[in-house]
Amino acid sequence: MLVTLTTDFGLADPYVAEMKAVMLSINPSLQIVDITHQIKRFDVRMGAFVLASAAKYFPPRTIHVGVVDPGVGASRRPILIETMRSFYVGPDNGLLTLAARRDGSMISYHITNRGYMLPRVSRTFHGRDIFAPVAAHLSKGTPPSEFGAEIADAVTPTFVEPRLVEGKVVGEVIHADNFGNLITNIPLSALGWIGAKTNARVRLKVGEISRTVAVTQAYAEVQPNEALLIEGSAELLEISMNQGSAARSFKGKTGSRVEISRA
Amino acid sequence: MLVTLTTDFGLADPYVAEMKAVMLSINPSLQIVDITHQIKRFDVRMGAFVLASAAKYFPPRTIHVGVVDPGVGASRRPILIETMRSFYVGPDNGLLTLAARRDGSMISYHITNRGYMLPRVSRTFHGRDIFAPVAAHLSKGTPPSEFGAEIADAVTPTFVEPRLVEGKVVGEVIHADNFGNLITNIPLSALGWIGAKTNARVRLKVGEISRTVAVTQAYAEVQPNEALLIEGSAELLEISMNQGSAARSFKGKTGSRVEISRA
Amino acid sequence: MLVTLTTDFGLADPYVAEMKAVMLSINPSLQIVDITHQIKRFDVRMGAFVLASAAKYFPPRTIHVGVVDPGVGASRRPILIETMRSFYVGPDNGLLTLAARRDGSMISYHITNRGYMLPRVSRTFHGRDIFAPVAAHLSKGTPPSEFGAEIADAVTPTFVEPRLVEGKVVGEVIHADNFGNLITNIPLSALGWIGAKTNARVRLKVGEISRTVAVTQAYAEVQPNEALLIEGSAELLEISMNQGSAARSFKGKTGSRVEISRA
Repeated sequence: MLVTLTTDFGLADPYVAEMKAVMLSINPSLQIVDITHQIKRFDVRMGAFVLASAAKYFPPRTIHVGVVDPGVGASRRPILIETMRSFYVGPDNGLLTLAARRDGSMISYHITNRGYMLPRVSRTFHGRDIFAPVAAHLSKGTPPSEFGAEIADAVTPTFVEPRLVEGKVVGEVIHADNFGNLITNIPLSALGWIGAKTNARVRLKVGEISRTVAVTQAYAEVQPNEALLIEGSAELLEISMNQGSAARSFKGKTGSRVEISRA
Repeated sequence: MLVTLTTDFGLADPYVAEMKAVMLSINPSLQIVDITHQIKRFDVRMGAFVLASAAKYFPPRTIHVGVVDPGVGASRRPILIETMRSFYVGPDNGLLTLAARRDGSMISYHITNRGYMLPRVSRTFHGRDIFAPVAAHLSKGTPPSEFGAEIADAVTPTFVEPRLVEGKVVGEVIHADNFGNLITNIPLSALGWIGAKTNARVRLKVGEISRTVAVTQAYAEVQPNEALLIEGSAELLEISMNQGSAARSFKGKTGSRVEISRA
Repeated sequence: MLVTLTTDFGLADPYVAEMKAVMLSINPSLQIVDITHQIKRFDVRMGAFVLASAAKYFPPRTIHVGVVDPGVGASRRPILIETMRSFYVGPDNGLLTLAARRDGSMISYHITNRGYMLPRVSRTFHGRDIFAPVAAHLSKGTPPSEFGAEIADAVTPTFVEPRLVEGKVVGEVIHADNFGNLITNIPLSALGWIGAKTNARVRLKVGEISRTVAVTQAYAEVQPNEALLIEGSAELLEISMNQGSAARSFKGKTGSRVEISRA
């Protein structure tokens, strides 16, 4: 069985290893894959985006554990979500539901059964004390309903949808990656709203900076250090720069406003 | 068999992979878990703390390899420690002994048998040339005494113990984590020394900065960006800040003096 | 079967996990080892050096996947290289050939068979859409020639060879590691060119900074914060500093000119 981990723990502290140790103590044959431990601290939306991007490539029945959990120890519930395809275990704060909804047909459970938690549950580290042991027991065949009662009101993250405003497509940057690509919430098809072709040049504004850029299918269609719009690997429009950093060039970051209009 | 790795190698260089490659060449069925490779360069005390925090969650018979090794190639000995619970392999500089002592009943061996090292042993990288092959052979059932003679004088790290000074509990920060939590060497029970209750408000001084803070059981018991004292996941008092960084707020770091007195 | 990964993706984005997910979907029993994901962005030479350093320690038949790929989506070919010892999968830009040539007797194939790629191949992420599935199919026994035609002109990286100039050994820094060691392209034997012994003191110039340093076999042969020359774990001369950073002290970095002459 495969378990993935998505957290904001970083890699310098013992926390990630403690979660893995707890899981391997319960199910020694578990295969654990790190999605990332470098979600920005408490950034539930970034966590939701990264988890949802990666989850769809994993095999059916994978168990995804997510821990970006500013509300640990307070009233937010620990939950388990079962979908048509996968399982998700983590805090009920929207981290898991973006990925889970894409799988389709989700059922959520409020984890309450102490029998599947560590004997002593801290109020600061549910990743180790609740989510890790629950995932490990789930991987051994414990039915989801064993962990707690079904709930209908799991929190879903709110992402702004792109919209048409005065002849412009208006959206936002939802993730800036390691290469300086600015991943927007705008699908390629939105170019149709303004009558732009998918190989056109368009007017692009990110924050306060405007430029006319090509919509391309490969970075190399423009000169080095020239910006472009491209349908990225997340199937959303990305603002990129051939061999350079669009994030730096446009001073763009998560949350930056993006406008696209006809050139 | 499980092997863990704790080093100060970082993740950009080939060193960690070379150790894993050596181990998997000797024992292909080994399961390797990274505790961290981001110990601060040559910081044996941080390495000892992180390893000791994580080790206790791993299953019995886990082999923990630690390499924070400023004295590599000089006279410090390579050692193997067997405890009631686990094995530890690495340099004899105190890195391993904090974790090993917590397991109880440790026996240390000076690794000298060249038959279990790589054919060519460099004087700069014992992690790859000695510790990795020793751990892999140990995982295949080679008895600890095969690697070298028992020794009684393995180095133990010196951690300052908290103490009562003029009506104040005085200790220090032993680790600042990714969330800005300042983990102290002070157990919750030390609040009893000054007659403070475990849900009291106390006067806290970190370095030069003093504040009155609540002793809580969860971050969310105080307002966002309010400091607090809490028994953390390492079962020691941590100075934290709800959704913020105590390290930044108190300008605290490893080694900072901590004083707690009645409010 | 073992697969390794060497990329410039960093660890914060979903890209590495997507590659692992694709591979494990095709071959669930694969064992995946990260060499590094922190190659400097688009730095093919650093990638080639790190991969070549680590590859030789892995068991025979290991499949090494490398993705440092500034030309993705343009005309550079995806390739598979089979050597006497290992397999290499990645872009045809020199990233793989340094390691492959050291194995000896390499045959290269131009990957063209769409049957072994993901159904939809993006033009921005061949790591996930081509290299990962090819490596996974290769691990299941698909013969290399199934993936495409043999080619004779795979790109090889050009590394400057050290040379003797006016009585000086002249080379360059090829990698600066996490410890501030400056790894040069100069083998220990080159000291013989200038009649220097391997335990001599020599005159060393890195960029604009000159010093007389000892050639040693261990860091501890000099005082703390004293520079030295040593044959490092890559079997090349490294400029190091006992318990300090030679990179900082000499202001050295990848590409810095290095001169060694008699003291």
